[in-house]
Amino acid sequence: MAAPPAAFAATAATVREEVAVRVAALKSRYADNVCGGTPGLAVVIVGERKDSQTYVRSKRAACEAAGIASFGYELPADSSQESLIDLIRTLNDRTDVHGILVQLPLPAGMNDEVVLDAIALDKDVDGFHALNFGRLAMAGRSPPRAVPCTPKGVIELLDRYGVDPAGKRAVILGRSNIVGLPVALLLMHRNATVTVCHSKTVNVGDLVREADIVVSAVGRPGYVKAEWLKPGVVVVDVGINAVDDATKKRGYRLVGDVEWEGALSVASAITPVPGGVGPMTIAMLLVNTVDAAERSFQHQ
Amino acid sequence: MAAPPAAFAATAATVREEVAVRVAALKSRYADNVCGGTPGLAVVIVGERKDSQTYVRSKRAACEAAGIASFGYELPADSSQESLIDLIRTLNDRTDVHGILVQLPLPAGMNDEVVLDAIALDKDVDGFHALNFGRLAMAGRSPPRAVPCTPKGVIELLDRYGVDPAGKRAVILGRSNIVGLPVALLLMHRNATVTVCHSKTVNVGDLVREADIVVSAVGRPGYVKAEWLKPGVVVVDVGINAVDDATKKRGYRLVGDVEWEGALSVASAITPVPGGVGPMTIAMLLVNTVDAAERSFQHQ
Ligand SMILES: NC(=O)C1=CN([C@@H]2O[C@H](COP(=O)(O)OP(=O)(O)OC[C@H]3O[C@@H](n4cnc5c(N)ncnc54)[C@H](OP(=O)(O)O)[C@@H]3O)[C@@H](O)[C@H]2O)C=CC1
Ligand SMILES: NC(=O)C1=CN([C@@H]2O[C@H](COP(=O)(O)OP(=O)(O)OC[C@H]3O[C@@H](n4cnc5c(N)ncnc54)[C@H](OP(=O)(O)O)[C@@H]3O)[C@@H](O)[C@H]2O)C=CC1
Repeated sequence: MAAPPAAFAATAATVREEVAVRVAALKSRYADNVCGGTPGLAVVIVGERKDSQTYVRSKRAACEAAGIASFGYELPADSSQESLIDLIRTLNDRTDVHGILVQLPLPAGMNDEVVLDAIALDKDVDGFHALNFGRLAMAGRSPPRAVPCTPKGVIELLDRYGVDPAGKRAVILGRSNIVGLPVALLLMHRNATVTVCHSKTVNVGDLVREADIVVSAVGRPGYVKAEWLKPGVVVVDVGINAVDDATKKRGYRLVGDVEWEGALSVASAITPVPGGVGPMTIAMLLVNTVDAAERSFQHQ
Repeated sequence: MAAPPAAFAATAATVREEVAVRVAALKSRYADNVCGGTPGLAVVIVGERKDSQTYVRSKRAACEAAGIASFGYELPADSSQESLIDLIRTLNDRTDVHGILVQLPLPAGMNDEVVLDAIALDKDVDGFHALNFGRLAMAGRSPPRAVPCTPKGVIELLDRYGVDPAGKRAVILGRSNIVGLPVALLLMHRNATVTVCHSKTVNVGDLVREADIVVSAVGRPGYVKAEWLKPGVVVVDVGINAVDDATKKRGYRLVGDVEWEGALSVASAITPVPGGVGPMTIAMLLVNTVDAAERSFQHQ
């Protein structure tokens, strides 16, 4: 994989085209189904966070573009947890909804876990239900119904650029349930030798120096120093950080965790921010939704 | 922790005494309960493997010694999976059974996962149900009903010898669902920087050389070379391997994965085999059973 960074941006577009082809095939094969073979994703947002609204808009637009029906629900920030769970139960029962996504973070006072675990296992396209996560963690048992979108996108990028993690040293920066931990588990299942770093890790740089693959999901601009990188390393930059930039109309720009300029000359491949993992995350949400729809149609 | 290896053997005995005290307290507090406040463990074995029979005997004896009721079930090797699951369902419904342990491995032809997932979550004292495992893996959400016994025993040993994993480099050899992986996850939650090695890892020795804590669960005698160990390292040897020994009546003796003599002079602490992690595994089964019973009594 000696791919120029720009190439990565094209990958998500390719995946989205593949999804559109699958959706068209489902519509023709399951035309007699109650929903005419159309996969459906319900996207629920509680409150009015600007960033969440932007994410939800991109996700819904990507659905529409691929032929997936998207159903939006906007609850006020002061909604009760019960009303949110009631909505989820209704969506669980609907035959035209195959995936349910509750945009995080939820307003303070709501319990993420209780809310997420209310989503029917088969419709958990985010893969955050504890049972799905347990299956993701364990090898040799049933696979999860869905793998969380960002980690799945990271693996898909490596696959599509021919990076086989087997036998490689992979260093993961960050251990969140959403990114760092599942990326680590997936790379371990792909036979990488994985080390997970976090805020209590001493001498992160020394560990990164030994890595053949570095995945950063810390959320700090410039956190990964170019001088830490081994020549030829593959760098996947998951971080999305806003830094002040007076030359931009909105006053900031988005950057990753990695010292970009310096890293470019050392790494054999590096994913750009924006344009690398972010778009893949959305593409994987579409894949998970179509997978869920296909399972549902097959069982009808 | 500059504990002499012999000290570790005493730890499991201490835990078992603590369990006996808790059991006595439950019997007095919940004397009016249907089962008189007595925690109960059902132990199910299918087939006649000698090693499994030995493990089951030790587990049942440890229960009795701590005042826990133990109910044994022996099914013939040619039993159907349905009959095993029927038995599990009956045990799920019994009010005097708080934990259910199905001894692995099951005979070929039975599906471990289907069998283990039939155990009621509240009675899964082995912690192998996917939902329990998902909760073990994720931080900041509900804890699992039970943590698998061997990994829990490893952490308990470190705790009781004052080894705080935070900020330490921990290298785990082995990634099985039963030992290596859950040990890695638990140490990560305790803020160690964890690396997991397995059969596809290149240069295991180089990784072990950097470790402050080494946990070996590979199952090969002499696998961990004394020369790999950093002075002062803490070594937890989970491996149990039979090696030929003509001086023994039964013709073999049990050893761990680590080159014992050499390691003794380098490590600041090292668990012996037999006598280290093995007895702790049984002690943790008792703890998990009493925890399950206490939860059940509180909800009655
Ligand atoms: N591209 C995409 O689609 C997505 C991008 N992201 C981005 O990825 C980044 C991470 O997201 P998320 O996992 O949710 O964030 P979290 O804040 O949940 O996790 C951050 C992790 O980084 C670790 N960390 C923090 N400071 C340091 C440090 N100085 N040294 C080493 N490790 C450190 C934390 O350690 P500790 O556990 O000890 O606190 C934690 O494990 C963010 O920038 C986010 O915007 C997230 C999701 C999707
Ligand atoms: N003390 C106790 O109470 C218990 C002790 N044990 C003992 O612990 C040991 C491990 O048990 P278990 O986890 O069930 O065993 P498994 O056979 O399921 O797992 C062994 C692990 O070791 C890895 N491995 C094998 N060969 C090598 C090698 N050459 N280099 C590096 N890694 C290697 C395997 O890698 P890969 O995944 O690539 O195959 C695998 O992950 C056994 O000796 C067992 O008897 C087990 C349970 C309880």
